[in-house]
Amino acid sequence: MPLYIQKYKQKVGLPPGTLVHIGSERAGSSKISHILYSDGAFEEKEVSKIEELEINDQFSGVNWINVIGVHQTEVIESIGNHFGIHKLIQADIVNTKHRPKLEDFDDHIFVVLKMIYFDENEKIINEQISLIVGKNYVVSFQEIEGDVFAPIRNRLRNSSGQIRKRGSDYLAYTLIDTIIDNYFVVLERIGEKIENIEEQLLENPTDETTLEIHTLKRELILLRRSVSPLREVIGTLERGESKLIHKTTRIYLKDVYDHTIQVIDTIESSRDLLSGMLDVYLTTVSNKMNSVMKVLTVIATIFMPLTFIAGVYGMNFQNMPELTWKYGYFFALALMFAIGLLMLIFFKRKKWL
Amino acid sequence: MPLYIQKYKQKVGLPPGTLVHIGSERAGSSKISHILYSDGAFEEKEVSKIEELEINDQFSGVNWINVIGVHQTEVIESIGNHFGIHKLIQADIVNTKHRPKLEDFDDHIFVVLKMIYFDENEKIINEQISLIVGKNYVVSFQEIEGDVFAPIRNRLRNSSGQIRKRGSDYLAYTLIDTIIDNYFVVLERIGEKIENIEEQLLENPTDETTLEIHTLKRELILLRRSVSPLREVIGTLERGESKLIHKTTRIYLKDVYDHTIQVIDTIESSRDLLSGMLDVYLTTVSNKMNSVMKVLTVIATIFMPLTFIAGVYGMNFQNMPELTWKYGYFFALALMFAIGLLMLIFFKRKKWL
Amino acid sequence: MPLYIQKYKQKVGLPPGTLVHIGSERAGSSKISHILYSDGAFEEKEVSKIEELEINDQFSGVNWINVIGVHQTEVIESIGNHFGIHKLIQADIVNTKHRPKLEDFDDHIFVVLKMIYFDENEKIINEQISLIVGKNYVVSFQEIEGDVFAPIRNRLRNSSGQIRKRGSDYLAYTLIDTIIDNYFVVLERIGEKIENIEEQLLENPTDETTLEIHTLKRELILLRRSVSPLREVIGTLERGESKLIHKTTRIYLKDVYDHTIQVIDTIESSRDLLSGMLDVYLTTVSNKMNSVMKVLTVIATIFMPLTFIAGVYGMNFQNMPELTWKYGYFFALALMFAIGLLMLIFFKRKKWL
Amino acid sequence: MPLYIQKYKQKVGLPPGTLVHIGSERAGSSKISHILYSDGAFEEKEVSKIEELEINDQFSGVNWINVIGVHQTEVIESIGNHFGIHKLIQADIVNTKHRPKLEDFDDHIFVVLKMIYFDENEKIINEQISLIVGKNYVVSFQEIEGDVFAPIRNRLRNSSGQIRKRGSDYLAYTLIDTIIDNYFVVLERIGEKIENIEEQLLENPTDETTLEIHTLKRELILLRRSVSPLREVIGTLERGESKLIHKTTRIYLKDVYDHTIQVIDTIESSRDLLSGMLDVYLTTVSNKMNSVMKVLTVIATIFMPLTFIAGVYGMNFQNMPELTWKYGYFFALALMFAIGLLMLIFFKRKKWL
Amino acid sequence: MPLYIQKYKQKVGLPPGTLVHIGSERAGSSKISHILYSDGAFEEKEVSKIEELEINDQFSGVNWINVIGVHQTEVIESIGNHFGIHKLIQADIVNTKHRPKLEDFDDHIFVVLKMIYFDENEKIINEQISLIVGKNYVVSFQEIEGDVFAPIRNRLRNSSGQIRKRGSDYLAYTLIDTIIDNYFVVLERIGEKIENIEEQLLENPTDETTLEIHTLKRELILLRRSVSPLREVIGTLERGESKLIHKTTRIYLKDVYDHTIQVIDTIESSRDLLSGMLDVYLTTVSNKMNSVMKVLTVIATIFMPLTFIAGVYGMNFQNMPELTWKYGYFFALALMFAIGLLMLIFFKRKKWL
Repeated sequence: MPLYIQKYKQKVGLPPGTLVHIGSERAGSSKISHILYSDGAFEEKEVSKIEELEINDQFSGVNWINVIGVHQTEVIESIGNHFGIHKLIQADIVNTKHRPKLEDFDDHIFVVLKMIYFDENEKIINEQISLIVGKNYVVSFQEIEGDVFAPIRNRLRNSSGQIRKRGSDYLAYTLIDTIIDNYFVVLERIGEKIENIEEQLLENPTDETTLEIHTLKRELILLRRSVSPLREVIGTLERGESKLIHKTTRIYLKDVYDHTIQVIDTIESSRDLLSGMLDVYLTTVSNKMNSVMKVLTVIATIFMPLTFIAGVYGMNFQNMPELTWKYGYFFALALMFAIGLLMLIFFKRKKWL
Repeated sequence: MPLYIQKYKQKVGLPPGTLVHIGSERAGSSKISHILYSDGAFEEKEVSKIEELEINDQFSGVNWINVIGVHQTEVIESIGNHFGIHKLIQADIVNTKHRPKLEDFDDHIFVVLKMIYFDENEKIINEQISLIVGKNYVVSFQEIEGDVFAPIRNRLRNSSGQIRKRGSDYLAYTLIDTIIDNYFVVLERIGEKIENIEEQLLENPTDETTLEIHTLKRELILLRRSVSPLREVIGTLERGESKLIHKTTRIYLKDVYDHTIQVIDTIESSRDLLSGMLDVYLTTVSNKMNSVMKVLTVIATIFMPLTFIAGVYGMNFQNMPELTWKYGYFFALALMFAIGLLMLIFFKRKKWL
Repeated sequence: MPLYIQKYKQKVGLPPGTLVHIGSERAGSSKISHILYSDGAFEEKEVSKIEELEINDQFSGVNWINVIGVHQTEVIESIGNHFGIHKLIQADIVNTKHRPKLEDFDDHIFVVLKMIYFDENEKIINEQISLIVGKNYVVSFQEIEGDVFAPIRNRLRNSSGQIRKRGSDYLAYTLIDTIIDNYFVVLERIGEKIENIEEQLLENPTDETTLEIHTLKRELILLRRSVSPLREVIGTLERGESKLIHKTTRIYLKDVYDHTIQVIDTIESSRDLLSGMLDVYLTTVSNKMNSVMKVLTVIATIFMPLTFIAGVYGMNFQNMPELTWKYGYFFALALMFAIGLLMLIFFKRKKWL
Repeated sequence: MPLYIQKYKQKVGLPPGTLVHIGSERAGSSKISHILYSDGAFEEKEVSKIEELEINDQFSGVNWINVIGVHQTEVIESIGNHFGIHKLIQADIVNTKHRPKLEDFDDHIFVVLKMIYFDENEKIINEQISLIVGKNYVVSFQEIEGDVFAPIRNRLRNSSGQIRKRGSDYLAYTLIDTIIDNYFVVLERIGEKIENIEEQLLENPTDETTLEIHTLKRELILLRRSVSPLREVIGTLERGESKLIHKTTRIYLKDVYDHTIQVIDTIESSRDLLSGMLDVYLTTVSNKMNSVMKVLTVIATIFMPLTFIAGVYGMNFQNMPELTWKYGYFFALALMFAIGLLMLIFFKRKKWL
Repeated sequence: MPLYIQKYKQKVGLPPGTLVHIGSERAGSSKISHILYSDGAFEEKEVSKIEELEINDQFSGVNWINVIGVHQTEVIESIGNHFGIHKLIQADIVNTKHRPKLEDFDDHIFVVLKMIYFDENEKIINEQISLIVGKNYVVSFQEIEGDVFAPIRNRLRNSSGQIRKRGSDYLAYTLIDTIIDNYFVVLERIGEKIENIEEQLLENPTDETTLEIHTLKRELILLRRSVSPLREVIGTLERGESKLIHKTTRIYLKDVYDHTIQVIDTIESSRDLLSGMLDVYLTTVSNKMNSVMKVLTVIATIFMPLTFIAGVYGMNFQNMPELTWKYGYFFALALMFAIGLLMLIFFKRKKWL
């Protein structure tokens, strides 16, 4: 999930609305699937070109066109032109680093969202989903193939819930709801990681602990960038200023809005928690260094005077009376022992031992 | 009080309004108690199914239905359907990790709150309380059995205060007021803990002190998440835009609103206090290390030169004039004593001793 | 000035508007003084019960009833009932931990403020002052006896300034103004303490310096809690939405409002200053430790090699040619001296000495 | 530039609008200069009492009365009364610690500003300038004599620019503009200091560097207090709600407003820069301590084993075979050399040398 | 990119609207190029004086006058007067340290922007671009010659895109869009630097790493100062309150507005990332010091007791029984070995080795 837009340079100076794909390089051609449904009917097919679509404006049901892969700008352009989408919006669709946003044209609404999930290497993947919601159609654009919308397709097939009885706005809501629900799954995973780190902190913090804290903080910074604009995007939808959104759909959008706020709250709290954990780590390191220093100081303070005494009686002066005493040696040993003991008591009192 | 919603995954992809219990696993079946009261009457019974309730819409008194346990989704569903509650709201009731919120339908208001208390292990427990307030009824949902509403039940039985003379909005206020009042009890407990830590800090800070500070900070982060949405929830109630709230109840809701602000203020101030205490701890640790280092340095600086002199006169050169002097040994001892004394004076001046 | 409300628990579950004294325990009974004044008249007496008061609603002057001691709830209740004060407001008066607030009833305004001063032990005392401002009366509640309103009483007696020519709103302004003015006196004292600490920091920082910084920060956190709600309280008064506030009084309230802003600004700046001072202290401690370490390292680095050389020539090998040289000893001494000197030069260059 | 108001205590309890000079003690009497100008005329004189002024209300030009010294409250009072200024405003003029503010009476506007400059000791001086702007007059109050308004006087004398063709609002604008322009001069000086500190940081940071950072931070905290209220003050003027401000003057006030925002921005950025520099300083100190520790550890680790070996062969056991070997001594020396070399290689590998 | 305005002093005291060039000193004279285009026509020429321009107000196309170099105030003045630009705005054009802003006069709009790019020494250059947008003309002012607008000139020449079909507002949009697009290029470069630093942090952090973090933080502080006012500037344009902005251009300005928000977001996130990295660096340094201390302590703790024992048997007492034992020496060696081994095991257990 990179923070910066690479290869933006190629776009600088081009006329606005020129379609330039910005994002990870992808191979293969785009796939277009078309689902047509109403309360009583359901039809599903795959087309390779947008021209093959037959959309009947008089039809009372909903057309859902799902496009996988936005790297072929000519495909996106032909779809965009087919639905009368502004050139700038077409350019936004192929710029997969765009900030989440909502744009309300009178006869259609354009929404950019971010789908977030962990890949197999435990890295957070940030995929852009764009939606165009018209009176009787929804066009959705995904970057890569994934089964994220599979449950919705099943509900359409089986006519479970209300989905087939309702219009394109309800389908758009369902798609957005699915995306937001995935944030909770990602946050639960992050929550587990934070708990792991907390356990490590209490038991045996290592250098790696800091790095893990740092990595999580970084991921939360990037996550917040994807999620925080959603507050406004979904808030705008929910306030229902567009005539494309039926009044009965608003309560559903309010529900998604609540979830979005909860996601943003959780991200903020997680960042606070991680900052607190870094502080704990730092004090732990300081405390450890303190105890290492104490060991060193105790050892040095005990043995330096003793070694000094041994040194004194190792001097070679001819006239050193103590050396000739019968119990001089034992006296010296006793002296050393006494000094060592005193030191130990001293450190015991200072609570260093 | 976990920050993250576990097991949310099971909900992803289901049609909206599907009731999935999210929260700690619970055993046993839900309990439903029904209290019916008016200024002159009071009736109390336990029912096992919502169908056993006989609610007379013409009745001028108030019906209070209290449901303990929201893990049996079919029970919640039947209650919800009985009162004409939207499917999404039913789903919110059984999602015990929901953010506090208020939703105003014309004929009823839905409120989610959090009840906070310390359990026997001194851990903060966060229980979700949902309220549905209608014209002549209040339905309240608790997660677990507790006697938190017992004083209200007593006031109803004894008709103490105004409670039996007033409508469902006043009952809702009383329930919310009881919940907010409990926050003060929790905060008082946290305040005692903070004072304990502060005493420890001044007297004998240990590694555990940091951990305690960290634990309290963590709890305050989670507490704030439960409380801060209440500002808006209760503010909305108090501004009285719903026709279900009588004008005379507003001053009571204003009172609860003031308490909520005070709770939020106290949480913020507590966090500031704890951050300051962590700073004090860190400087204390630094100062201690400093004094350990000074002891080591004083000892080393005194004994290293002395040991060196002893070493010199321990050398075995054949021609070492001092060794043959009569008072060479005593001279050497005097030299060592003088050096040691000078060092001590030096450190005294440097204020290291 | 405690942050947490003690003994709140006793209030939980009681009907709203039950008067429970919350705050420090007080002995003795409340004192009620009654001052009645108009441009031409002035009357002052002490009553023991509110029933002894004779308030003439037709009277054109102002009645000022000052109550000292709010721990006798029955006294407050009788006064409250006498003036037709809502039960909840009566409960707010005896809860001396209430947040500053303003409540505007049509025929009277209720204001809670905090009087701040240093006691003889240099601890900040936080006394709650409540005011009820009616058309021709002001009731003021103090927790403890103090001469804080004495100058106002004198101005009333001597009819100095405009105070006797104006209504109850001007009296209320005068009381509030006196309270806010006292904040400046407290802040001046805090300012002196900050300057003391700053001097200590530059000259001879000790462990106590951190504690003093911490104590002041703590006091400022608590002070801010008392003062920051005043911005809204006095702002509301000043905007003059109540018909009890005459237009000519507004400029006076604007003046108090400006003072409140200045107090809040000063508290914020003081906190910034103290945070900066803690940073300076920490770097000072680090620097000191650094210089202690340097002394240790210099001593060890000089004497360890010398002691080693002495040790070498103290070995008892039979075949050690140097030992038999005539000037071997002096050569060894010269070698040691040279090594010591080189080390000193090395440290001089490294700027450790 | 002190943060706290000294000697405020004398004001507590006095009737509002009592003039008490708050600020540094000043000697000498106030000076009043009077400039009268219109497009064609210019007259300048010094008066000692306000009564000597002859202000002709019918006169179409502008009267600029500049008062130097506000410590003689009776002078300010007589001027204030002459222009019909409210007592509270008069009190604000002599309280030189007042927060910048604007007060709009219908027939005149009162503005408090702060003039900032470095004195000869490189300390920031904070002088209060008050302005009263009427229909055909401006009264300006300075604390001390300075030539800050001299260029304006010259422009008036020489009729350079538009100043003589315009009214009192333009004169007020010119005065304010001059004051704000001076902030840039102060900020440029602070900018140079920050650059100096940055150079020191990179080359040779000492204890003084922290103190300089601290002093600058402190000055910026105090500066911000003087400047940030100006945003509102000048914004209010510029929105032109007062009928005293001509429409054509608004673009000039907008210009001053832009400058004020730029000053506030620069102060904020400077504080961020200084905080960053303190962090750099702290890491530098930590790194230095680290390198000192490494020297100590390298020396101790090399010489301690060698000294131990020398000690072993200095023991006096009768039966120590090595001592009698012919090349025992040289063997021991070789052993010591080898151990020392190994240690050096070890530290080289660890990159400690 | 300096934070402070140098040489502002020369401007203090001058009449407002006096043109004083503020910024880096420049040589050479200004260059004026004039492009005249409409859907069918295109004309391009260079003029040396503004008087040579022939602007036909009746002409339906757009005049684009690009001025390079604003240090010759008389040139800017003549251009400003030619288009009827207010003196203050002329002064803003030559003050190259001005904050980005928009000023809407009825017949023209004045916009100040900052062009940001890295120069060859990897320093961020901050060039001021001013635009005056009239009904059929755009005047743009650059500080130095650069090819930044070359692509636009080419699009005009080749009539690519819609640019020749649209009015002066679209040209202004194109210029602003080009400037904002360049921010992404600069941010991508900063992103690469941050990634480099992160790699260094993980592998081999040195003193330079802190300095690089500090430099980047500093650059981001200054960058934010240039960019954050743009939110308001472009927001104002986009809301289309000026009648000079056609409704069809608004969607383009909305697009630029989105980009600006994304730039500001990225700057904020980058600052958060860098702060996190400084924390990681500090813990790394602490950990290193800890491991250095451990090495020292292990060595000292092992060899100090051993050296002491060697010292004891090096004493010269006449009566030391051990010395005469046959295997005394070997016994002593064994003792030393045992003690050393015990110490090693002790440190192994403490996980210091």
